Parts: sequence; structure tokens; C-alpha cells
Amino acid sequence: MSENDIFIGNKPVMSYVLAVVTQFNQGATEVRIKARGKAISRAVDTAEIVINRFLEDVGKSAIETSTEVVDTESGKTNVSAIEIRLAKK
Amino acid sequence: MSENDIFIGNKPVMSYVLAVVTQFNQGATEVRIKARGKAISRAVDTAEIVINRFLEDVGKSAIETSTEVVDTESGKTNVSAIEIRLAKK
Repeated sequence: MSENDIFIGNKPVMSYVLAVVTQFNQGATEVRIKARGKAISRAVDTAEIVINRFLEDVGKSAIETSTEVVDTESGKTNVSAIEIRLAKK
Repeated sequence: MSENDIFIGNKPVMSYVLAVVTQFNQGATEVRIKARGKAISRAVDTAEIVINRFLEDVGKSAIETSTEVVDTESGKTNVSAIEIRLAKK
């Protein structure tokens, strides 16, 4: 996981928005927002809020979805994942 | 909303998987899976399950996210949205 990856969990969405904005303000030219399962919706919220409210010179450069295999107590299970790449225009 | 749009709500994910598979089996060459808010995660699940388990000749042709303004009792509010386009390869 590179320092420009933001992994979305269960915190309030503004925590992740702040993390992304901070990365760009510290000189990053690209930030990857990653999430799995139910956090996927929050990842989309994060990207949309960053672009529409905070950083007008940043846009979505790619959106990918995938399926990841996760080990749980009851065996392996599939979980959907998303990666939203934001980049300076 | 065209007949090839599947709008994701609160039903079990397999209901939407079946709806998408049915569209392709009836001759559709492209199906658009749409969702807003918390249903976004289920939209990604639907697309991944269709591609990985049911229709090997179908792939993701585009993924777009956006912000929509929705009227509620307490005024206008923003909600994130996703559109995942699946197409025959």
C-alpha cells in the first residue's frame, strides 16, 4: 500500500475527505481511494465530495471494481472492491 | 430510464443479478446498472457476480460516479450515484 492510497473504513466520510485533501496539499499528483464491501458507497462519497467541494483542479482518472477473496472464520468468501483514482488535472 | 437500465434498491443482490442476466439472455448487448447512496455497494456486487459467475462473455465497459441532488422533506441534499455499464465482449 503506497502512501498515496486511502483505504476507506467505518469512520465518518469527512475523515477520508480530509485525508485525501491533505495528500494533494502535500504534493501528491494522484491519490487512490480503495474500499471493500459496504464501504464502497463511502468511497464514492469521498471522491465526489473532494472533487465537488474542495479541489476543483482534481478529477477522477479511473474507476475500477474487482472481486477479492477474503479469509474468514467460516472459510473463504468473495467481497467486491473499488479503486477510484483521483489526479490533478 | 431505458429498458436496459437496472436500478439497484434494497432487494437481495441475487434479484438484481437475475434481472441483469435476463436482459442479456433476451438479447440486450448492453445493460446499465444504476444505484445511489448505500445501494452503490450492492451495484458493484451485482456487476461482479454477473461477470464472474454467470456471463463470461460480458465485461464492464464503463464505470461512472456522480453527485445527484435529491429533494427531501428537510430540503435538497446531495447523494452519490454510480452507473456500471456491462456489455457483451
